[in-house]
Amino acid sequence: MTTLSPTHRSTLTRKKDRAATDRAALYEVLDEALICHLGLVLNGSPVVLPTGYGRDGDTLYLHGSPGSGNLRAAMTGIDVCVTVTLVDGIVYARSLNHHSMNYRSAIIHGAARLIDNEDEKMHGLHVVSEHLAPGSWDHARAVNRKEFAGVSVLALDLAEASVKVRAGEPIDDPEDVATGTAWAGVLPVRTTFRAPIPAGYIPADTPIPPHVTERCRAGQRRR
Amino acid sequence: MTTLSPTHRSTLTRKKDRAATDRAALYEVLDEALICHLGLVLNGSPVVLPTGYGRDGDTLYLHGSPGSGNLRAAMTGIDVCVTVTLVDGIVYARSLNHHSMNYRSAIIHGAARLIDNEDEKMHGLHVVSEHLAPGSWDHARAVNRKEFAGVSVLALDLAEASVKVRAGEPIDDPEDVATGTAWAGVLPVRTTFRAPIPAGYIPADTPIPPHVTERCRAGQRRR
Repeated sequence: MTTLSPTHRSTLTRKKDRAATDRAALYEVLDEALICHLGLVLNGSPVVLPTGYGRDGDTLYLHGSPGSGNLRAAMTGIDVCVTVTLVDGIVYARSLNHHSMNYRSAIIHGAARLIDNEDEKMHGLHVVSEHLAPGSWDHARAVNRKEFAGVSVLALDLAEASVKVRAGEPIDDPEDVATGTAWAGVLPVRTTFRAPIPAGYIPADTPIPPHVTERCRAGQRRR
Repeated sequence: MTTLSPTHRSTLTRKKDRAATDRAALYEVLDEALICHLGLVLNGSPVVLPTGYGRDGDTLYLHGSPGSGNLRAAMTGIDVCVTVTLVDGIVYARSLNHHSMNYRSAIIHGAARLIDNEDEKMHGLHVVSEHLAPGSWDHARAVNRKEFAGVSVLALDLAEASVKVRAGEPIDDPEDVATGTAWAGVLPVRTTFRAPIPAGYIPADTPIPPHVTERCRAGQRRR
């Protein structure tokens, strides 16, 4: 397993014991989450946008409209920060001070690269599509020329990344553990899928395809 | 109901039909989500950090360690961007191009203010605590002087904010609706709580307090 190669800004300065240092942890966070938060600097101010993405190996793909000012800024090769967070639980401690959250988060720094090669762009769209809706690439009507021209795809190397994890039970001060009376524990938080709802224009006898029903089942089992 | 007062950077340039313009929509997003993503500019580069928060009226409170370089930067009164996102569903369309997500997101721009008044700081901690773990403020061991000194609280006015919502079924092109064969619909995404897990140091006969069991029940009902 390749370790993450931290630079100054991807090295945790706080709660270093929560740093995960292998790529498997990074992939796990990126592959499980549904969206990322894309940060960039626009006119000197930070902007944070929720957006879809997909991962292939050590490349993260993002897509969006060429008409978006924010995306246009990211296309010019300026630094971006992509953060992906999974909330796993609320941590109740005996002291207010030790209340916390269980979570897994990944932070990636780098300059996003606008893809102009058509094959690579189509690959990037495929990767983003499979992350959002696995199986739809083969099931749904393909992207046509006009649609293809109307979307931009960005690539971001997963070179400069950090992962932070908090898991397990609360950690209270010894005196609170010994003499405290408050309850302490974890309230697990889960993200799940519910039963799919067909669009009104889908004929009533249309079966829900396996790539949707399977995701729903898998999602309900999700830890 | 007060409307949101958009400035240039809080006015949506894309998908304007998804802009919600009343404060109730903003409050709903902020009150339902568990975490925010705090964006700031550090050494010229964007940084996006997942963090807890709480809302009281038109003020958002954030807290963190005074030892955190990122938080120290936010304390100097520089611009921040706080983004809160709720994912409500995966939208499957007949065409790949119209695949989407149902979501509600709030984006707040402003300069965060470090609170130095002790009463206001305690109030901010209370608000953040009640957001993370409603009921714990009265149940758990209170914050002592040392803990109080070891935390910083920031306030951010909800003056410059925008809310974006996508809800409902997919929107396909008329020709795909008429002649397409792919399935289309929504796979709802829900965030729920599971049964609380007591810490190992809690005596086995300790009842789980109502503020925890009630949250778990309410969370399981959550839309």
